[in-house]
Amino acid sequence: MDAGEQRVLSGMQPSGVLHLGNWQGALVNWVQLQDRYRCFFMVADWHALTTLYQHTEELPALTREMVIDWLAAGLDPERSVIFPQSWVSQHAELALLLGMVTPLGWLERVPSYKEKLKELAQREIHSYGFLGYPVLQTADIALYRARWVPVGLDQVPHLELSREVVRRFNGLYPRARLVEPEPLLTEAKVLPGLDGRKMSKSYGNTLSLRETPEAVRSKVATMVTDPARVRRRDPGHPEVCPVFALHRVFSAPATVAEVEEGCRGATLGCVDCKALLSGAINQALDPIRERRDYWSRHAQTVGEILHHGATQARKEAEATMQGVREAMALDPMRLMSETQPSVGG
Amino acid sequence: MDAGEQRVLSGMQPSGVLHLGNWQGALVNWVQLQDRYRCFFMVADWHALTTLYQHTEELPALTREMVIDWLAAGLDPERSVIFPQSWVSQHAELALLLGMVTPLGWLERVPSYKEKLKELAQREIHSYGFLGYPVLQTADIALYRARWVPVGLDQVPHLELSREVVRRFNGLYPRARLVEPEPLLTEAKVLPGLDGRKMSKSYGNTLSLRETPEAVRSKVATMVTDPARVRRRDPGHPEVCPVFALHRVFSAPATVAEVEEGCRGATLGCVDCKALLSGAINQALDPIRERRDYWSRHAQTVGEILHHGATQARKEAEATMQGVREAMALDPMRLMSETQPSVGG
Repeated sequence: MDAGEQRVLSGMQPSGVLHLGNWQGALVNWVQLQDRYRCFFMVADWHALTTLYQHTEELPALTREMVIDWLAAGLDPERSVIFPQSWVSQHAELALLLGMVTPLGWLERVPSYKEKLKELAQREIHSYGFLGYPVLQTADIALYRARWVPVGLDQVPHLELSREVVRRFNGLYPRARLVEPEPLLTEAKVLPGLDGRKMSKSYGNTLSLRETPEAVRSKVATMVTDPARVRRRDPGHPEVCPVFALHRVFSAPATVAEVEEGCRGATLGCVDCKALLSGAINQALDPIRERRDYWSRHAQTVGEILHHGATQARKEAEATMQGVREAMALDPMRLMSETQPSVGG
Repeated sequence: MDAGEQRVLSGMQPSGVLHLGNWQGALVNWVQLQDRYRCFFMVADWHALTTLYQHTEELPALTREMVIDWLAAGLDPERSVIFPQSWVSQHAELALLLGMVTPLGWLERVPSYKEKLKELAQREIHSYGFLGYPVLQTADIALYRARWVPVGLDQVPHLELSREVVRRFNGLYPRARLVEPEPLLTEAKVLPGLDGRKMSKSYGNTLSLRETPEAVRSKVATMVTDPARVRRRDPGHPEVCPVFALHRVFSAPATVAEVEEGCRGATLGCVDCKALLSGAINQALDPIRERRDYWSRHAQTVGEILHHGATQARKEAEATMQGVREAMALDPMRLMSETQPSVGG
């Protein structure tokens, strides 16, 4: 490892085909990070088990489709390490060791744990693995000696817990020298969905990265707009309109200004405004469609990319684990070398 | 694996030089099990971290000394697989997967967990790993498809929890077919120590397997006896005397009968009775001393035995894990083969 090299780790649970919200909320940022950092992008399939353990047969397809979308969005397997977490067993080993020094109370007070617990109460068991989510997450980061983890403001408490666990571990085993991760704060770009709520698969209000141009047009045509603008001649309020919110993401600044003026002045109707948006979204999606076509036709190569990524990831992870095992006196060589001197004794 | 082969897994936390209580309470049984089962004997060094995490630098010596005593007691590395848990990363991987389906409530109600929690409250943190002890233990057993686990009656609830976890896992992932372990109940032979309490390192009342003949004599001479027998001519009560309890383990039946009669009839004094016991213990220890001398002179071979054992253990563990990953759809080949058909799609 180049000592001056700056590393980033990020991951997503395998969730199949991605939508515009995933793209703008995470992938666009990931693609840019590749220019400045050595990036590790992980399919968090073990994490997915905390909620998906009853439906694991879906994992291969969810992984494959998501990774194709990652590549379509511009992740570059030549520069970044792309791999499924479950193919790198060191994640489990480091999580086990970190868990030995993580006080239970630290985990029980994680805010998102308490929230999720309420959700799960109705339908899922509250498992040991679910409680340990942040421990596994800490292992994910520490294994690659990643200094930076791209997060939104809402995830800073999670990362703070990882920092605490790493500090405690380094305090107990100073020679381990795990890298204490820091948040790489990214503007949380939350996209509205077709119904105006946050775009999310669970709301069924998404535009996926795989929509055809026609599907984009017909779905955008169904979008809710400013409810106060009943007739075309009523002036609109772009600040409350989800169509306008998407314009700000996908249209050129000149178009955004034009749309805003036309809406407020009632010179631009919603149908035309939506047509402009569809055009802008389709234009943004075109290069993604092209790359996705390529990767779909080279699906075997996608599998090879993951294998290659996992091989690189294992090499890095094993180097970290060797240091950890040595620092904890758990390394086989230590036992061998300390056994040797007592020959004849 | 031979389908008809019956397997046993057992382990001990690395605790250095063993004492007569460890020997009679566990090792004698392990040695016999080798004749009837394929045995896996594990140095439970990861388990030791739940309490020893602040002193891991002691682990290599504690492991080495304990394994030398295992070999001295008659474990046969040609027949049994002897290995440190931490050298077989599959233990961590399976524990992680089992933890995903283990309800927290099952762990919180383990009786020994509650007890130990009280002890720890005073001096140690109550860690995530400590709560997960039974999950890791279940992985230890299931990895080797061990049907039998030698336990005393007090440990049956632990094994019952392992059985529940395995059943739940098999219920969710039927193709995993983990072997549900059963207790191999062994008469819990609890030896009294020099002070009459249970022989235990924490009481400082042990006779170690490494005592010289002289040390055995002088330590046995200090043993407490029937407190009612103040003078030699007072009749004694063998049933309350720790010296007599050890006679029953180490002396021939004829000697035991003779000692009992002599004690009750006040024809045998405590000094002579203890001399008989020292002789019996030393006679029992002689073959152990001989083997221990051999292994101490071949300490490098001890390291090699552990390496060889870990290699065998990894092979068995990996075979189990391949089945587990396939059953959970986490196997790389599944993703590859399901990726292939969509070429051109």
